[in-house]
Amino acid sequence: MNIVVDGMGSDYAPTPEIRGCIMALQEYPDLHITITGKQNLIQQELNSVGFTSHNLSIYPTTQVVEMTDKPSSVYKKKKDSSLVTGIKLVQSGKADAFVSAGNTGAILSISLFLLGRIEGVRRPAVAIYLPVYPHGVVLCDAGANINIKPHHFLQFAVMASQYMEHVHGIQNPRIGLLNIGEEDSKGTDLYVKAHKLLNKSLPTFKGNIEGRYILNNIIDVIVCDGFLGNNILKFAEGWVSHITEQINRKIKTQVSSPEEAEDIKRIFTEVMSEYDYEEYGGVPLLGVNGVCVICHGSSPSRAIKNGILEAKKSVEENLVTFIQNGIHQYIKYIETRNV
Amino acid sequence: MNIVVDGMGSDYAPTPEIRGCIMALQEYPDLHITITGKQNLIQQELNSVGFTSHNLSIYPTTQVVEMTDKPSSVYKKKKDSSLVTGIKLVQSGKADAFVSAGNTGAILSISLFLLGRIEGVRRPAVAIYLPVYPHGVVLCDAGANINIKPHHFLQFAVMASQYMEHVHGIQNPRIGLLNIGEEDSKGTDLYVKAHKLLNKSLPTFKGNIEGRYILNNIIDVIVCDGFLGNNILKFAEGWVSHITEQINRKIKTQVSSPEEAEDIKRIFTEVMSEYDYEEYGGVPLLGVNGVCVICHGSSPSRAIKNGILEAKKSVEENLVTFIQNGIHQYIKYIETRNV
Repeated sequence: MNIVVDGMGSDYAPTPEIRGCIMALQEYPDLHITITGKQNLIQQELNSVGFTSHNLSIYPTTQVVEMTDKPSSVYKKKKDSSLVTGIKLVQSGKADAFVSAGNTGAILSISLFLLGRIEGVRRPAVAIYLPVYPHGVVLCDAGANINIKPHHFLQFAVMASQYMEHVHGIQNPRIGLLNIGEEDSKGTDLYVKAHKLLNKSLPTFKGNIEGRYILNNIIDVIVCDGFLGNNILKFAEGWVSHITEQINRKIKTQVSSPEEAEDIKRIFTEVMSEYDYEEYGGVPLLGVNGVCVICHGSSPSRAIKNGILEAKKSVEENLVTFIQNGIHQYIKYIETRNV
Repeated sequence: MNIVVDGMGSDYAPTPEIRGCIMALQEYPDLHITITGKQNLIQQELNSVGFTSHNLSIYPTTQVVEMTDKPSSVYKKKKDSSLVTGIKLVQSGKADAFVSAGNTGAILSISLFLLGRIEGVRRPAVAIYLPVYPHGVVLCDAGANINIKPHHFLQFAVMASQYMEHVHGIQNPRIGLLNIGEEDSKGTDLYVKAHKLLNKSLPTFKGNIEGRYILNNIIDVIVCDGFLGNNILKFAEGWVSHITEQINRKIKTQVSSPEEAEDIKRIFTEVMSEYDYEEYGGVPLLGVNGVCVICHGSSPSRAIKNGILEAKKSVEENLVTFIQNGIHQYIKYIETRNV
């Protein structure tokens, strides 16, 4: 299997990318990774860590997509970027999956343009996996689709269920609609309609789920529109860093023993890191005709490694095929209705 | 000043209500509180704590509004409830403000019906005050208005700004629109239009604010629709209790010294309690023609006391008049446009 990693995507590129690739290759020596980007920078970083392997190739590119680049103009203006070239390698079959910590909008738009959608998929969506105990939950859509219609919720539910079943091993994942109350009538008009559609279409749909239960493991797949999903995620991200700051402030003023302060910090950091999606790794782009994993811009090497392993698992488990089959079960229903 | 407290509203009524009233009276002996509810239950609770004061009266009622009661039928079916009677006391001028930890939908609907809206207000809204350092921020609307139009955002911004200025002493509060990115074009069609309207109407509007910065004190008033606001709040609530559980689990397995475990728990509890809106107190219902403060159903006595003090401050500062003046500045603009 060959996974292509965008070497110039993250805020601190190419260091986290290269170190993440090395970590993945150390764990899976049979894997092959192609890293796209500026050859001299990548080679320099490889030399500095003294790593050489036949399983890591550099595919030189000259351009870099910036976080400020307008997604719609990237393909035209930055054809020789690490991002566009990486996705082209998947398109041409030279790589099996693409991993990038670059401009999310550009990854969405270029992968949709070059790889296309899985047959029957209306809108590809981003799924965020939250690693709660005893097993994680996935939130979809986490930001790819802002203005949507009820039938898109159904597609998100089907795609994210296939992802949970085949990548995370959850049989018959329970689906919930993120909402402000349990009753069928709760939420905006869009959510009332989405509830109705999910309820009559999916036997594994368990109804609305309130935000307070997202982390309680009563539902495996939580569907929502990308505007709500992205707002929730960004709030969670801010919350983690804010609480961490407050804890450190309290420790400074209230704990006199340095050993105890260390213990508190360690316990707290361990708990919070489980919820810090910057740290966690990649999120899959579901519905495009190929495996694409998007990592956070500030990803450290561990997150890049996790993104690569997520891509590897998605390829091994034929996620794209399963999504296609899942969507086909519902496509006639969706095609014949204007909901 | 006479504040009427719904004695039967909370999950553990009337205990938290009565103890909250006593705490408020101990802090402000000049205050008068009327508590509505079942006389025998209230008297029993007062006897059990041995509290008597001329400044606490019982107004006996026979019915109780349950959390499961449909808001629209409460007025008809439960006229002699502690909730309806309490709001009637404000309507008739016998009380200056109403505080309840009861059925939020019923409080919204009955207060709107009996007290009416402040002239010019289209939709009353709920504002949640988040006590972050160095001073709090307010999120409005937190759940009263689910399907809304752009001009409602403008009213929420005006009402919540008056609340921050007059109840929390923040001069010229900075207003932000909760959104998934800073750019004007971000968000749903509704949010793009709301941004445009806020931007040209309010000199204190600072643009979009992402969820990750809600707690960073860069904005004083955060406006959003009630669907998004309520989802964010419910998620925050779940997050607090989930993280607390995880911390306790780690302490049990990783900390051997009981003293150290206590220290960790104390620090953590102190930090988290600042963000636990169940603990914090009441949230004002902005835009009705009277002071109404809604407390969480599971409010402990401290939260009820804080709700009473919030109501007291709102009356003293003439919040209703200031909201009316604020809305009047914008009413012509709103009336003449169909945005």
